[in-house]
Amino acid sequence: MQTKQADFLRELYKEWSDRMAANPNMTLADMRSLFDEWEKATLEPEDVTYKTDTIGGVNTVWAYPVGCNKSKVLLYTHGGGFAVGSSSSHRKVAGHVAKALGVSALVIDYRRSPEYPFPAQLEDAVAVYKALLQSGIKAKDISTIGDSAGGNLAVTSVLKFRELGLELPGCVIAFSPWLNMELTGSTLKTNAETDALITPEILQGMIGMFIGEDDSKTRHPLVNPLYADFKVYPPLYINAGGAEALLDDSVRLHERAKEMGVQSTLSVVDGMQHVFPFLAGRAKEADEEIKRIADWYQAL
Amino acid sequence: MQTKQADFLRELYKEWSDRMAANPNMTLADMRSLFDEWEKATLEPEDVTYKTDTIGGVNTVWAYPVGCNKSKVLLYTHGGGFAVGSSSSHRKVAGHVAKALGVSALVIDYRRSPEYPFPAQLEDAVAVYKALLQSGIKAKDISTIGDSAGGNLAVTSVLKFRELGLELPGCVIAFSPWLNMELTGSTLKTNAETDALITPEILQGMIGMFIGEDDSKTRHPLVNPLYADFKVYPPLYINAGGAEALLDDSVRLHERAKEMGVQSTLSVVDGMQHVFPFLAGRAKEADEEIKRIADWYQAL
Repeated sequence: MQTKQADFLRELYKEWSDRMAANPNMTLADMRSLFDEWEKATLEPEDVTYKTDTIGGVNTVWAYPVGCNKSKVLLYTHGGGFAVGSSSSHRKVAGHVAKALGVSALVIDYRRSPEYPFPAQLEDAVAVYKALLQSGIKAKDISTIGDSAGGNLAVTSVLKFRELGLELPGCVIAFSPWLNMELTGSTLKTNAETDALITPEILQGMIGMFIGEDDSKTRHPLVNPLYADFKVYPPLYINAGGAEALLDDSVRLHERAKEMGVQSTLSVVDGMQHVFPFLAGRAKEADEEIKRIADWYQAL
Repeated sequence: MQTKQADFLRELYKEWSDRMAANPNMTLADMRSLFDEWEKATLEPEDVTYKTDTIGGVNTVWAYPVGCNKSKVLLYTHGGGFAVGSSSSHRKVAGHVAKALGVSALVIDYRRSPEYPFPAQLEDAVAVYKALLQSGIKAKDISTIGDSAGGNLAVTSVLKFRELGLELPGCVIAFSPWLNMELTGSTLKTNAETDALITPEILQGMIGMFIGEDDSKTRHPLVNPLYADFKVYPPLYINAGGAEALLDDSVRLHERAKEMGVQSTLSVVDGMQHVFPFLAGRAKEADEEIKRIADWYQAL
């Protein structure tokens, strides 16, 4: 039974869906403004400070919980289909997770599509990761984390680090990752009625901006890690909402990673919408999930 | 000579103006999303924490600079024509000012027009002010502060407190206050070319949402404090940009307040746009202005 507080996110998504339907030619600038409202779902995490910074040439915002271990960093790649979302929409949710884990978070404003298609986002994640390593942060003390398209980047950036021969981060955390660029996930249909935001049409638009019309790229392992080799990979924590159309992506990632020997944990919370940790501070479903992540992280 | 950094605000306003011109039927929801982008002008103030709270029944966000005097409060009413803007757009600028003054700031999400026309905004400011007093904060340790339409509220709320027989705040701070609801300010014409956002048309739309079509209300002293009695009033600090169409409102408020014996200070910074303190952390024009406010505040 979901709480009344958790309904905030479904209502927000319904409102966005209505606004996008009423304005089918909504400009990208207006859509970016709209998705920045994600931040309204999240209450301010108390006792967290912030700093605007440039790391590896990328615009970023640090979240520093008071008294946190600054030598440990969550490298946070925000969601929004690679095209929308920003440090503004994700500062607070990153702050909540950082606080629960007792570490700092770095929300990166990677270049967005369509102005900068694949692999610009991965290049920026690599640039930030290298800069953190050069600053003296240890690889094992960095975790990649992200939601939706940013959950994809949290997963694929580590594949890219591995390809480049870099030491790998300590762990990977993905909230409602969007991975399947072929749009063949079963829950796209079975959860179509319950998901208040995600539709195949929205995803198809995002795919076009991210990788263009070249169909073969939908199976590129750095675009769609359901085709990736996970034989050498850090511990992985995945969560998703039971009501969301992209649930199947999380289930398939978890199964593939486990088959290849990754220490993978999947947490599915009944009735929740896409990226329900946005409800941090507001709904206990999100706070309890973040507590589970903290317990998992401390036990690594 | 303005800095390159200060140009960020003009560019942002130009982009908004273009987007609104391209979409003359922009919905209020989309316009609220657009104006929340104000926050992009402001860099994160370092060493400031936040807390979502409800005070006097009003949704608010506290900004607590680390080590600040929490018994002193800036009651911040955000700008946006009484209809748009929010704690999201103004959290950072409030944090910068609070930090410079060594006090806390409380950004209030008062009810916005047109759903809640005049005097809902003042009622909410009164409810918050009374709740602060009841919590043990001394009136002299509260300052009202705001920008644009919120600068109007910072000024008029104190007139309302006086009318209600409440003890008055220690001081009032207004950034680019919008006061003249008759739209007779000389700079609406003389700065029309240099102001990148404000036009009589935009203001007229905001007036319609705030007070309706009743022309007599444009001279109501709690709507347009250029008609108010300032004989008993706290020290007042006003700033404005030299390039802005609403500059005349600041000049006239300063002159009227001084004539009536108020200790009033006016700071006009050449070449600056509407509410240039939004550039805090980014442009020295804003940081220097906030430093001047801190010096003024400490000397009260």
